[in-house]
Amino acid sequence: MAQRHLVISADCHAAAPWPDYEPYFEKRHRSPFRDWYGARVERRPVRPGERLFDEKFLDQMDEAQEVERGGRRGAWDPEKRIAELDADGVAAEVIFPAAESFHVPFHGYRPTTGRLDPQPRELRAAGARAYNRWLADLCSHNPQRCAGVVMVDYADVDAAVEEIRRASREGLRGGVLLPAEWDDLPSYNHPRYQPVWSACEELGLPVNTHPLGSGREAYGDLPGATPIFLSEVKWFAHRPFTFLLWAGVFERHPRLRFVLTEQMADWIPETLTYFDDLYERPIFAQIRQGLPLKPSEYWRRQCYVGASFLQAREFEMRHAIGLDKIMWGSDYPHAEGTWPHTREKLRETFGGCPEAEVGQVVGGNAARVYDFDLEALAPLAARIGPEVSALA
Amino acid sequence: MAQRHLVISADCHAAAPWPDYEPYFEKRHRSPFRDWYGARVERRPVRPGERLFDEKFLDQMDEAQEVERGGRRGAWDPEKRIAELDADGVAAEVIFPAAESFHVPFHGYRPTTGRLDPQPRELRAAGARAYNRWLADLCSHNPQRCAGVVMVDYADVDAAVEEIRRASREGLRGGVLLPAEWDDLPSYNHPRYQPVWSACEELGLPVNTHPLGSGREAYGDLPGATPIFLSEVKWFAHRPFTFLLWAGVFERHPRLRFVLTEQMADWIPETLTYFDDLYERPIFAQIRQGLPLKPSEYWRRQCYVGASFLQAREFEMRHAIGLDKIMWGSDYPHAEGTWPHTREKLRETFGGCPEAEVGQVVGGNAARVYDFDLEALAPLAARIGPEVSALA
Repeated sequence: MAQRHLVISADCHAAAPWPDYEPYFEKRHRSPFRDWYGARVERRPVRPGERLFDEKFLDQMDEAQEVERGGRRGAWDPEKRIAELDADGVAAEVIFPAAESFHVPFHGYRPTTGRLDPQPRELRAAGARAYNRWLADLCSHNPQRCAGVVMVDYADVDAAVEEIRRASREGLRGGVLLPAEWDDLPSYNHPRYQPVWSACEELGLPVNTHPLGSGREAYGDLPGATPIFLSEVKWFAHRPFTFLLWAGVFERHPRLRFVLTEQMADWIPETLTYFDDLYERPIFAQIRQGLPLKPSEYWRRQCYVGASFLQAREFEMRHAIGLDKIMWGSDYPHAEGTWPHTREKLRETFGGCPEAEVGQVVGGNAARVYDFDLEALAPLAARIGPEVSALA
Repeated sequence: MAQRHLVISADCHAAAPWPDYEPYFEKRHRSPFRDWYGARVERRPVRPGERLFDEKFLDQMDEAQEVERGGRRGAWDPEKRIAELDADGVAAEVIFPAAESFHVPFHGYRPTTGRLDPQPRELRAAGARAYNRWLADLCSHNPQRCAGVVMVDYADVDAAVEEIRRASREGLRGGVLLPAEWDDLPSYNHPRYQPVWSACEELGLPVNTHPLGSGREAYGDLPGATPIFLSEVKWFAHRPFTFLLWAGVFERHPRLRFVLTEQMADWIPETLTYFDDLYERPIFAQIRQGLPLKPSEYWRRQCYVGASFLQAREFEMRHAIGLDKIMWGSDYPHAEGTWPHTREKLRETFGGCPEAEVGQVVGGNAARVYDFDLEALAPLAARIGPEVSALA
């Protein structure tokens, strides 16, 4: 029997058409939710009992070569989702919010600015809870294969911690999302976030950052906006790492694990070298007293990169980054990821590389970080996984 | 006779105590200027004829080991300045605004936020003109040795262009400063800046970026603020490069020269690799039509790095950056630079490196970019320059 890799995608996404979220809201928020999504879709409130669909969103989900089998609708349909994972050779996945557009209730971005739509914080928190409940339901169809990431609003830190506890009890074990931008909240070096770090450390939940519309407010519709965005987005996405590191969060929470997802890996060696270099400067004597380890040592102890559809040149840097730090991801169902051509894309990145090292990056590391049961997944991987020989 | 390097610092600074600027203002702005600086220094307007000194600024200029000879007062005193350059072995210099604090009339930063003090744009432009006139006077004492950088306010682009023309006619030949942050103006990919690029191209004036308080608004007084600032400032400082590149400014202005000063050089090889990689992506077919060269090719054609007090590990990257691109700088009179220990610091960075390569970086490149007359400077360098053998 052919040897196959056990592949875990550390970067997938899920989101539902708006009406599907309604039953997951607490009763008192259903009417504001209908008003909100009705206004987004058709500039009118939705009547109780009505289900108003966002055709643009549904069209996106039917786009391009996947129309026939509608695979992108696995963003919310558990059967289609699993069929796509199987066909793509992916045994398990970490699920981040949103699909195509940022599709979480009360969390829309204003497309022209990339800034958060300024919704009342109470509603943002309610929208996140509804999303978490919906996601837990989606994951419950395949609990061994799906680790959902909890979405919270950080305006009320105590409420956020409560929701992290509730949602993780309810089955979301992908950790919590820390938005790359803090928007109008204090930056992440503020002590107010301490209870979040403590809870995640205690519960063994990774804190994940993932880029969203970061930085877009600066480019508008001006020339070069798309390449400027792509040039800068990975930097915006790793600002939280910089802030937590120097604020001593990793020092005070030595068991906290921090994951930087879909923001490439090529910046890591140079950044760690530079941060270590800063650390050694004479003016930082006081900072060294509070941080007994060098930045690269905190990185090695506690941080991981969800490098998603990484390129061969990034995999070449694996020893400078840490072979045990890098997690591949397909970004399903996003168009820029490897789905539905994961096998070929894996060959492009990993072709000819040592089998054991590839195995760690395409699955082993994510299993450890997100606590997937490799034994339980082994029979599945033996059936659907990409053949080791095909990547050799 | 010992061989000596001809050293040009591509990164020095100048600024005057507030009252010294007054005569350089147009008459109608002198009273608003006195009101403004009086409010900053003593929370009261300055009376006509009065000279109110900012003791904090003067104290900064007398700090540390240079007190005895008051060398830091060369920020505004031409005799002290030249004495310090001589003693430090520096034959010529490019002069950027500000010394210690950001000391240009109507251009103060709010220390807690790092954002510009929101002064009326007319006064900001008037303050920049006064500064330019004052700087031209400072440079006129040693025109062969000093290339002053023009400061303008970009709110009124036509007026900015007029001032660039006037100030360069008046002897400021260091090009123009483009602040790393555009504050509340449109970002630099906006077509409104076109006349600036055209004028600088036509006049052969480099466009220089230099970091200031970038990003500070995000950290406040929170834990880790200083190392976070130092971790991020070089990224903020090179955003203008990213914006001009992808907006096609280098393509449309092939003779425009762009200089990135005091923002390190270690990020350049990886950034160019990544930008070239973006450029080749299938989705960028249309962008490639507008930009026939790769990002690294525009870099090679038009850009330079004022790497200031670069480190040995950065000089090791010189071939990936471009040996003809790198310009050393002392950052005089700033405390973080090499002054007054330039000879030793040069040895730390360049010790044992090929003489010709060192010569290019410590002087030759800057001479070309800023049009210094090497022949005229040669006798001076032969007298004061650091000995070649001392760096070998």
